[in-house]
Amino acid sequence: MSAKIDLYVDQHQQQFLEELCEFLRIPSISTLPEHDGDVKRAAEFTAASLRAAGLENVEVIATAKHPLVYGDWMHAPGKPTVLCYGHYDVQPPDPLELWETPPFEPTLRNGNIYARGSADDKGQMYMHVKAVEALRAVNGKLPINVKFLVEGEEEVGGASVAKYVEENPGKLKADVALVSDTHLYAEGLPTLCIGLRGLVYMEIEATGPMRDLHSGLYGGAAPNAVFGLVELLSKLKDANGKILVPGVYDDVEAPDSAELDSWRRLPFTEEEFLAKEVGSTQLTGEPGFSVMERTWARPTLEVHGIAGGFVGAGAKTVIPAKATAKVSMRLVPNQIPEKVVAAFKAFVALVTPAGIQIEVRVLSAGPAISVNPNHKAIAVAAEAFADVMGKPTVLTRGGGSIPIVGDFAKHLGIPTVLMGFGLPDDGLHSPNEKYKLANYYTGIKTVAHFFELYGR
Amino acid sequence: MSAKIDLYVDQHQQQFLEELCEFLRIPSISTLPEHDGDVKRAAEFTAASLRAAGLENVEVIATAKHPLVYGDWMHAPGKPTVLCYGHYDVQPPDPLELWETPPFEPTLRNGNIYARGSADDKGQMYMHVKAVEALRAVNGKLPINVKFLVEGEEEVGGASVAKYVEENPGKLKADVALVSDTHLYAEGLPTLCIGLRGLVYMEIEATGPMRDLHSGLYGGAAPNAVFGLVELLSKLKDANGKILVPGVYDDVEAPDSAELDSWRRLPFTEEEFLAKEVGSTQLTGEPGFSVMERTWARPTLEVHGIAGGFVGAGAKTVIPAKATAKVSMRLVPNQIPEKVVAAFKAFVALVTPAGIQIEVRVLSAGPAISVNPNHKAIAVAAEAFADVMGKPTVLTRGGGSIPIVGDFAKHLGIPTVLMGFGLPDDGLHSPNEKYKLANYYTGIKTVAHFFELYGR
Repeated sequence: MSAKIDLYVDQHQQQFLEELCEFLRIPSISTLPEHDGDVKRAAEFTAASLRAAGLENVEVIATAKHPLVYGDWMHAPGKPTVLCYGHYDVQPPDPLELWETPPFEPTLRNGNIYARGSADDKGQMYMHVKAVEALRAVNGKLPINVKFLVEGEEEVGGASVAKYVEENPGKLKADVALVSDTHLYAEGLPTLCIGLRGLVYMEIEATGPMRDLHSGLYGGAAPNAVFGLVELLSKLKDANGKILVPGVYDDVEAPDSAELDSWRRLPFTEEEFLAKEVGSTQLTGEPGFSVMERTWARPTLEVHGIAGGFVGAGAKTVIPAKATAKVSMRLVPNQIPEKVVAAFKAFVALVTPAGIQIEVRVLSAGPAISVNPNHKAIAVAAEAFADVMGKPTVLTRGGGSIPIVGDFAKHLGIPTVLMGFGLPDDGLHSPNEKYKLANYYTGIKTVAHFFELYGR
Repeated sequence: MSAKIDLYVDQHQQQFLEELCEFLRIPSISTLPEHDGDVKRAAEFTAASLRAAGLENVEVIATAKHPLVYGDWMHAPGKPTVLCYGHYDVQPPDPLELWETPPFEPTLRNGNIYARGSADDKGQMYMHVKAVEALRAVNGKLPINVKFLVEGEEEVGGASVAKYVEENPGKLKADVALVSDTHLYAEGLPTLCIGLRGLVYMEIEATGPMRDLHSGLYGGAAPNAVFGLVELLSKLKDANGKILVPGVYDDVEAPDSAELDSWRRLPFTEEEFLAKEVGSTQLTGEPGFSVMERTWARPTLEVHGIAGGFVGAGAKTVIPAKATAKVSMRLVPNQIPEKVVAAFKAFVALVTPAGIQIEVRVLSAGPAISVNPNHKAIAVAAEAFADVMGKPTVLTRGGGSIPIVGDFAKHLGIPTVLMGFGLPDDGLHSPNEKYKLANYYTGIKTVAHFFELYGR
């Protein structure tokens, strides 16, 4: 690693922080149409920051929904090309009342920067930009070629970037992609993620009577849309978390024993995980599988939200006519999203309660990802990580989904280095999302060092 | 029945309609604090209408929540006293988008008046007032003594009127109560209701993790409050509608065979009930019991509403920390509300899923009611009904709950004549609630005739 780069980053900490705060102040919530203008502003901010870092051919690319931002620097002939990907959109901040400081007013506390998007993914994407800036400022050039592709729909399925990648393999040609949207396994432990779960996300609507009915007059004879949906959902998985949809586990590929062994060596206690991260009375999930297996290597099903009938203050005695729920399944390697969706729909049709009509709408569907740990870019990334952080790099998986990694593999034929600097308790998608400031600077140094080693 | 009274009612139809419309325009939604001012206006309208009808000692009585309205006319010595009860508050009108015309702009269509509260209960309560007005206008006096007690909390549990009845048995002393808050069994069929189900209404709150969690990172290990609540609710009754809470059926008193026989003679087909009233793909409920038994004489359990997690547009991948539901049970004769609540709470504690914490809050609890059909007031009411409508009066039960009837029995020692003029498809508590205009006028005549016969 380069002392000059490290010095440059250390000397520019205040500037890098102020720029990030400016970025985080933009409420670029991609799922809420009322924030479309903010999403656009975040795209323009991203483009301006790419230009400022010395990237060329920078453009804001209009799509059917939110814009993409592209830029490149291709003046290292004979050297590899890294495609840097990130997203400038964020999750909605609700429930707002649980934030200690407002989600779009970045606030420093205890060495962390608190804001929606600080870790997921503005703070991490911005490290790539600053790494390029540092390398160019110190050396006048980059040790490799880079292309940037930054999207604004990651939190809503990423349809536009997927289409763009499929349609522009020539323009995006690279040797490897770099994504920083994961976390260190533990504070100070360099971590490369070599596997991610896939996701199918669905909306279920239940209809019972033609209108809300009086529960006194009709209770005992009329179907209840809320209870019908409750009955249906309760049949999707058992109390242990096992999915009851037939066929869902058919294609599941288990991790090999070496990988399972390496997971057992990771610093982890269930007690700490329960107390510090989950905060419920106990953990749940399939018996016989460790927490790592359950969250990284097993399919899961969750109900993200449910609504129906009267939920205001006081009492209203209705039999509700309609109810809806959001349901997703996380997928593991070898599961085919389309097959899982088909199995889900067939099972829902089978267990739909009497008198209830069910509609299932699929909002997104993407497979799990695994990366070959022996690929040169992965090996070099692990080396860069270990150099900067002074410890051997561990290889883990993630339970979340980054669908773009699948698109890169499918349409560009390249693997992805998942080099994230978040921490497990960053609170992604939750109130009080944070990003550790030290990791922001370490990340910039590590990305720059990865570029140096990869261009060696 | 008196031709003079009938003529008076016929000649004042337009006036009676306009007054009712003015009453219905007041959005006196007792459960929504933002409508407290409207509830008060409705109380004042009620008091003014009592005064205009010639009632004396009219007062608007402040309570802990919404006011009561009282008035009397006690100048028929030696004659019985009827306590006329009704309520001027209404249910919330949501879902608003399903109303063909606005809920608080009464509209005439097909001989019906469409408005929230038209049948439940403003339109029916107002018949009592107009019957008094007609009798006094025609005869200069009433054939019996009357007291009016009108409340504004019927749709939110009726705590204030219950307290007032308990504390003022002397002031409210009467021979019988008259309530018009039920419906004719069928169009043109004079109907007295001699039984009502009781109600216990509860709010259930489920807590899982300490905050909403990312379903990718924690799915498979963290409990989900929405799914936990779904699991719990699914265990409360089976797919046939049988309540699974142990002990709930222990005290249930079945109707005798004569009553069951009389129910079988009522004009009813399941096909018509399903198509015209319920409008789902099929009926539900306990096998081996008729629709009448299921809705009048069997306990039932309904989920009135549920909410938790993310239900906005698009996708958000959270494991929700909290979820709530509104749940009630309808009770039948001989069931003890307190015992049912205790059994419910014990069962909930038993089946609470791992990792989930549950809180049950009881919002109201009242027993079922049955009235002796041989009581003089009931017999006279049946005669008045038959005289005006030209058909023998049928005796039915109702599946709904009118807790005040229990309070009258308990604290005043009097039975209640449940003489309602609604129709089964009036849509109480639903969008497009209506009241048949002809029944409004028939009701005024019948109530006046009941007073005449009772004072004979």
